[in-house]
Amino acid sequence: MIPLLQNAVDKLSSFPTIGRRTALMLALYLLRQPEQEAEAIAASLVDLRKGVRYCKICNMISEGEICHICSDSRRDHSLICVVESIRDVMCIEDTGEYGGCYHVLGGVISPMDGIGPDDLHIDSLLERASSGKVREVILAIGKGMEGETTAFYINKLLLKSGVAVSTIARGVGFGADLEYTDAMTLGLSIKNRVPFE
Amino acid sequence: MIPLLQNAVDKLSSFPTIGRRTALMLALYLLRQPEQEAEAIAASLVDLRKGVRYCKICNMISEGEICHICSDSRRDHSLICVVESIRDVMCIEDTGEYGGCYHVLGGVISPMDGIGPDDLHIDSLLERASSGKVREVILAIGKGMEGETTAFYINKLLLKSGVAVSTIARGVGFGADLEYTDAMTLGLSIKNRVPFE
Repeated sequence: MIPLLQNAVDKLSSFPTIGRRTALMLALYLLRQPEQEAEAIAASLVDLRKGVRYCKICNMISEGEICHICSDSRRDHSLICVVESIRDVMCIEDTGEYGGCYHVLGGVISPMDGIGPDDLHIDSLLERASSGKVREVILAIGKGMEGETTAFYINKLLLKSGVAVSTIARGVGFGADLEYTDAMTLGLSIKNRVPFE
Repeated sequence: MIPLLQNAVDKLSSFPTIGRRTALMLALYLLRQPEQEAEAIAASLVDLRKGVRYCKICNMISEGEICHICSDSRRDHSLICVVESIRDVMCIEDTGEYGGCYHVLGGVISPMDGIGPDDLHIDSLLERASSGKVREVILAIGKGMEGETTAFYINKLLLKSGVAVSTIARGVGFGADLEYTDAMTLGLSIKNRVPFE
């Protein structure tokens, strides 16, 4: 493989889920495209990385200082959903079921990876919760041990602010078989059962 | 989704096998990388597309005018293996079983896609075959109807040059079950059987 191709394959395979075989296929595809197309792809990546801003309130990616969710007066600003990542915000937005605001932590507490509370946007969450304008914080984190720990830690800090703290319902997926649901989830779905509608 | 992200997702999902969901995941991964890493990835793509050259003899990608295979005196220059694409050369090189040279056609004849003989590097192949320095041309094309047609067409043209023309063996894959081999391949493997060694 010539160095130019080798380098492109190395760079492309640095992306998650892209192995060397796929990276080679992508690089060879690029060779068959017009030069300006290769430039447009490259520019879109640099523009994204350099041009993106993060909302001063919730840390979501944004075009301006404040994101389109935090600056939307139709949304409920007294309700904050705390999530781990930008992707989580998009997932919840896709449901169309949520009308409140968000707070992106930027990760979970993970001593193994050297991520402590100070590395996450927890202080700004506490500030928002103590402002007197927030009535409820929904903790939508909690995947595995580290998520649980982070949720536990934040809940403890939020107690002082006096806002209600809730967590998203865990249970059997809509349309899912009980047979294929893990025991932990199934147990929670029975413990946290809701009135039949 | 903000326009910068939308644009990057659009561009990334223009690659084959990359859907919009994967493209979004890649774009969000990029946001978590240092700025210089995003620049290095982008530069590797532009450098590849703009900097790559094609061997004047065999049309393989190359650093210089002549590729490292065509300029290698240890290889058999009287033996030319004709393939459809750059990827095919890499696959054959990976086997370590071939010591001759190549000729990359750049595709197969495909009237449906508007690709005729003049769009492929067939003239330069005939020129090489007629040079008096070549004794055998191996046709390693032939996937499906269009490949077969292309091989048939090239074989007819090569007849005049007097070089031997061969084609790669088709048969049951090494270690493969007869049960899962298609009838066409299995039939060929019996017709073209070789002495037991």
